[in-house]
Amino acid sequence: MNQSLHPLLASRWSPTKFDPAHEIAEGEIVVLLQAARWAPSAGNSQPWAFIVARRGTTEHTRLTRHLAGSSAAWAPSASLLVANLSHRFVEDTDWEFSEFSVYDLGQAVAHMSIQAQALGLHVRQFRAFDRDGIAREFAVPQHWEVTTLAAIGRAAPAAGRTSALGDDADSPVRARRALDEILWPLG
Amino acid sequence: MNQSLHPLLASRWSPTKFDPAHEIAEGEIVVLLQAARWAPSAGNSQPWAFIVARRGTTEHTRLTRHLAGSSAAWAPSASLLVANLSHRFVEDTDWEFSEFSVYDLGQAVAHMSIQAQALGLHVRQFRAFDRDGIAREFAVPQHWEVTTLAAIGRAAPAAGRTSALGDDADSPVRARRALDEILWPLG
Repeated sequence: MNQSLHPLLASRWSPTKFDPAHEIAEGEIVVLLQAARWAPSAGNSQPWAFIVARRGTTEHTRLTRHLAGSSAAWAPSASLLVANLSHRFVEDTDWEFSEFSVYDLGQAVAHMSIQAQALGLHVRQFRAFDRDGIAREFAVPQHWEVTTLAAIGRAAPAAGRTSALGDDADSPVRARRALDEILWPLG
Repeated sequence: MNQSLHPLLASRWSPTKFDPAHEIAEGEIVVLLQAARWAPSAGNSQPWAFIVARRGTTEHTRLTRHLAGSSAAWAPSASLLVANLSHRFVEDTDWEFSEFSVYDLGQAVAHMSIQAQALGLHVRQFRAFDRDGIAREFAVPQHWEVTTLAAIGRAAPAAGRTSALGDDADSPVRARRALDEILWPLG
């Protein structure tokens, strides 16, 4: 049997050049959040929360203020920024602690990314931001961590991608370790 | 615009009763691994590895030996077990360390799960196993952690699911927090 990768997974990639003219619809934002919401998690703990900042809104201004130099150059042109928060253990909070909070947030953002792909949108996740700055800006308490940011929008027309399995950063070939390098025992 | 969740995300669920007669094809296993392999990761670090154990093989016997009581009852009937390993920091290894290794493993397993859904298969991830026991059994060194296991196969015909958004554990209704409970500021 020769199965092939589902097109949503095979064609997904992570641009760093977004179309600054693209506008995302409110209904698209809702379905992106629904995708994250319905992701699986340990004991259904759902250890995630999201700060949503559409380009042109106050939230977007407040969020982009805390981007590091590298991401400040490209991320604000995406039509949407989402801050992905994982719940962490602090005594005396009402959310149950899960040792898989960061793992499960990864799953939720993956589901969001695949939904974006289904909408004809692209996602690039990144870490180049001031974590404490965003926490202060949005009054995020100790028991939540601003783990990653995701820029979501339409890739710029000239983003330079040439093949279905192209690179995650605008170069023509997307590369991964070979299968025998991730299968145990490692090759 | 009224967008709806992609069917692969809307219909996914996590059974605990698998069809013990279902056999998984080699080609299906390969495409599941390809789905994980092409997941995004921080700096393309790809901090993941997998132990693959098809029911009926020696690896399956060696893996199921280390299941905890709760999972030992249901997981071995799935046609495939996969141990999901994340790379962790230990000095003097050749793999670069990423602070997102567990987050990215979550993304990779999410991609694998969505590919499984596309193949008409189901996945249930779990933690009820002896982590050190599996590490010893498969000579997993210190710089890898056996983070989760995934049982993959066909849900048992009488698994009891009654709706498209049914429960993650064989009960009729799959439940999640409302959107305003995961949107910042939390409702």
